[in-house]
Amino acid sequence: MASIAEEIIPTAWNRDFEKISDHLAPSLARWNRSPQRLVTFEADQAAYFGVRASPDNNGIDRLPSLAWGKGDEFVLDFGVHMVGYLSFKLNCVGANMDAPCRLRLTFGESPLDVTMPMDNVETWISTAWLPDEVINIDMCPEAVSLPRRYSFRFLRVQVVDTSPKFKVAFSDVECECVSAISQAHELDAVAFSSPLLRDIDHCSISTLRDCMQTVFEDGPRRDRRLWSGDLRLQALANYSTLRDFNLVKRCIFQFAAVIREDGSLPACVFEKPKLSPSSDYIVDYDALFASIVLDYVVESGDVSAGEMLWPTVLSCVKRSLAHVNPETNLFEVNRSEQWKFLDWAPTLDKNAGSHGVLIYCLKAVNKLATILEKEAPHLDTVEKMAKAARQFVSKDNVFISGTENQISYASAAWLVLAEALPEDVARSALLNTISHADAVKPLTPYLWHHVCDALVTVGCYDECLKIINDYWGGMVRAGADTFWECYDPQDARASPYGDVRNNSFCHAWSCTPTYLLRGKLLDAVSGKVTGKVTMGELDEQWIQRSVGQNE
Amino acid sequence: MASIAEEIIPTAWNRDFEKISDHLAPSLARWNRSPQRLVTFEADQAAYFGVRASPDNNGIDRLPSLAWGKGDEFVLDFGVHMVGYLSFKLNCVGANMDAPCRLRLTFGESPLDVTMPMDNVETWISTAWLPDEVINIDMCPEAVSLPRRYSFRFLRVQVVDTSPKFKVAFSDVECECVSAISQAHELDAVAFSSPLLRDIDHCSISTLRDCMQTVFEDGPRRDRRLWSGDLRLQALANYSTLRDFNLVKRCIFQFAAVIREDGSLPACVFEKPKLSPSSDYIVDYDALFASIVLDYVVESGDVSAGEMLWPTVLSCVKRSLAHVNPETNLFEVNRSEQWKFLDWAPTLDKNAGSHGVLIYCLKAVNKLATILEKEAPHLDTVEKMAKAARQFVSKDNVFISGTENQISYASAAWLVLAEALPEDVARSALLNTISHADAVKPLTPYLWHHVCDALVTVGCYDECLKIINDYWGGMVRAGADTFWECYDPQDARASPYGDVRNNSFCHAWSCTPTYLLRGKLLDAVSGKVTGKVTMGELDEQWIQRSVGQNE
Repeated sequence: MASIAEEIIPTAWNRDFEKISDHLAPSLARWNRSPQRLVTFEADQAAYFGVRASPDNNGIDRLPSLAWGKGDEFVLDFGVHMVGYLSFKLNCVGANMDAPCRLRLTFGESPLDVTMPMDNVETWISTAWLPDEVINIDMCPEAVSLPRRYSFRFLRVQVVDTSPKFKVAFSDVECECVSAISQAHELDAVAFSSPLLRDIDHCSISTLRDCMQTVFEDGPRRDRRLWSGDLRLQALANYSTLRDFNLVKRCIFQFAAVIREDGSLPACVFEKPKLSPSSDYIVDYDALFASIVLDYVVESGDVSAGEMLWPTVLSCVKRSLAHVNPETNLFEVNRSEQWKFLDWAPTLDKNAGSHGVLIYCLKAVNKLATILEKEAPHLDTVEKMAKAARQFVSKDNVFISGTENQISYASAAWLVLAEALPEDVARSALLNTISHADAVKPLTPYLWHHVCDALVTVGCYDECLKIINDYWGGMVRAGADTFWECYDPQDARASPYGDVRNNSFCHAWSCTPTYLLRGKLLDAVSGKVTGKVTMGELDEQWIQRSVGQNE
Repeated sequence: MASIAEEIIPTAWNRDFEKISDHLAPSLARWNRSPQRLVTFEADQAAYFGVRASPDNNGIDRLPSLAWGKGDEFVLDFGVHMVGYLSFKLNCVGANMDAPCRLRLTFGESPLDVTMPMDNVETWISTAWLPDEVINIDMCPEAVSLPRRYSFRFLRVQVVDTSPKFKVAFSDVECECVSAISQAHELDAVAFSSPLLRDIDHCSISTLRDCMQTVFEDGPRRDRRLWSGDLRLQALANYSTLRDFNLVKRCIFQFAAVIREDGSLPACVFEKPKLSPSSDYIVDYDALFASIVLDYVVESGDVSAGEMLWPTVLSCVKRSLAHVNPETNLFEVNRSEQWKFLDWAPTLDKNAGSHGVLIYCLKAVNKLATILEKEAPHLDTVEKMAKAARQFVSKDNVFISGTENQISYASAAWLVLAEALPEDVARSALLNTISHADAVKPLTPYLWHHVCDALVTVGCYDECLKIINDYWGGMVRAGADTFWECYDPQDARASPYGDVRNNSFCHAWSCTPTYLLRGKLLDAVSGKVTGKVTMGELDEQWIQRSVGQNE
């Protein structure tokens, strides 16, 4: 996620909460993976990315015997998305190594990463995110270990130069993978009704696992940090699968530790070099903190954490509440310049959607109050806002927003999730909106998730499954190992940042299909829990399928 | 030096000699240097390189307070040439470091290195020698330490990217310098008759010191290894100045350790990863090993080393001797395809020069025999070859070579150094050759040294000094801190490798003026030994002069 700068509100540090989060820091699990094959990419108009990987004539076992000189290059395929540290042994082939060897290494999450050049990329976020490194090695044999962490499945190796007197050979190429979730970590094995759903479920879990480091990162490639909007969805997927409550709790307390003087929470925190709030602020993310805490307390049973966080939960909705017109009880986006997100769609009118988000969050506060045996503070406001929400349903029974009566998925999803309307009204307005030709569609998996969750909320399982199969299934068919930050079925090079080479292809906010498939949709997809499986076993199954596809 | 590939002759390892060389491995001295100033380069047609450094408006003390963002750059001037390891502290300036920082660091020995781009360099040796690094830093503050050794005076820092949210600042920039010669190492302080001679002497010593690492390297930037032709000149300069006999002995025994089965020696050895011969072979370098050993024994008094090396000295001239026509007693270049070097000048006819080199070397063998109280083995051959050498002097009294009677400095220098002719004949032919309009001139400092040494041999001190002042003095006037691999007074971008960006500007074979100035020329330049001075003091004096020049 990259964001709009906001005014700076001083931080009212809660050092006790910071200590709680510090004590919950995980020891990262580490394991090694080797490349599965050498691949070449050929143009293929039928493929989503326009290229197709096929195994090189040289089997991976021959790699140590292959010598590469100036201008040579190859791509290694590890068969599975990984987050970790690359090492290899570089050997000299020739009488003497009479010059350094310069290599360019490009870490590919997608085939585009390893088939497009990384020069002259025009992007409005930092080009320092680009996944290439140029390194020079003076002497061989050398055990090369790159100090930075990368997120990748493919490794493109370009030999920029050796000398006329020697070439280089590569052996012992390995990625030391890292995650808060070990290979031995167990989760339910679920049998699905189709290979596509099985793969969607797997990609969701892989995405989640690779984002689970010392915090829930939004994307292990970019920007590698904790955003509250992503955290909420990751936590939901986590409850359905890996059930690491400590990491969720740690992240919740990180946000609560950097509460600001007006009681609001930043949209994002930096864990390193020391815990600190980002200057990014998003009104809807702030309020949704209440939902994150509620979900955590319900799933974990950790009521005492709920008690501790109660003041934070109360204050996190204040800024959002300040947007409500006391006369109309409507959320008015224009009451502040503060950023309301919902989705990246540029023309989106956010009044109705924000109204829905706030009701959803106030209800979460009320539910948490009940669990904590406190008086629910927002019953009256919820009732008034729910009543007011009826005007977001047009006479044609679609969800509308703003002075232009804009029809959008965002408005529909959040007003349905807020359960502000009778279920039959909500259901038909939602279905009408989705099928409306003029409706503003989601641009992000984040909003697609909320559309799916809204559909499930009103029992529209088939419609939800169609989106999952089309949207997330589209990524799987395009070759995804993990789900992406951004997916435009029509344009493989679409990017919110000006250039696809700065996109993240393992991104937290797209990891939720498993939450639905293993949750409310389980029966609808004839899913059956067949026992337990480890993450290592799931990875091995994936590698078998992914490298077997083209062989 | 970069070379022509030769046939491979198996190595007849002398492991005893290798052990001797291993035991002589120096502990490198280490000391830190900080940048003296921020500089900007402006176009200046009067300057040799076409640019002139001037101090930036920001004093170096302000560096830590300066923030640099995408596209910014600056150049640090350390005021003296160094070989070592760069470190600095990188700080984030801004609310948060929300992206990595990508930097390009270019290590400049010359102003061209830090003012020309390093992309798309066309050179027939490896572009991996180019002195730039691209690094990515994920988190600040960060103590950045680059693992490779660099050779430089200037450091160009280009901020490829940060992000719109932060910039970076640099502090604690340091180079940990390394050499076999410490800052406390003492040598004679010599007062010269002119500042130019003082600077030429100093640049010679700096060149020597920066090449003195675990071996005598040809150039610490490129190619960082031991060539016998360079070693001979370095040893001579060393005897006049730093007098580190152990490092010379170590290098001599490294060559003797990798003797080949036919008794010849490679032109170059690799010290790391383990001692091994280069495949490069040069006939004249092989024979000159005898001269290196003789010089060492004479200067150090280490006769026992001479005893041990006697068989190697005997065998190192064999391949050269095989080029002598037994009927004419003339060295015939065409008797083998083996590489005869003398100089890089492409049209040079090498018959006469090689004849001179061989006589010179056979005389060295004979002299060593006398020291070792052995029978001189080549008295007869020397006499015959000296007699035959007369035909290299033309009727016009210039030195000629080959069927075309080519006139060249190379022929003249080596036939004079061989002392094959009566001194008056040699002197006049040498002076006539040097002043002849058609004479093939030297392309390398290596041959210029031999011209100077030849002039001194026949008492032509003024003529020698003129060359030193013009040629080495020309480098000083152009801003040299150390002497270069290649210097063309007419063309600052001349290169034996296709592009000046791959030239070495601290190169062993140009370090000899100090050998002559402190030796046979001392009286001619009214040089006076005034006491002792340390290398550290010499460096400080240089820095004061070099950074004071434009202020």
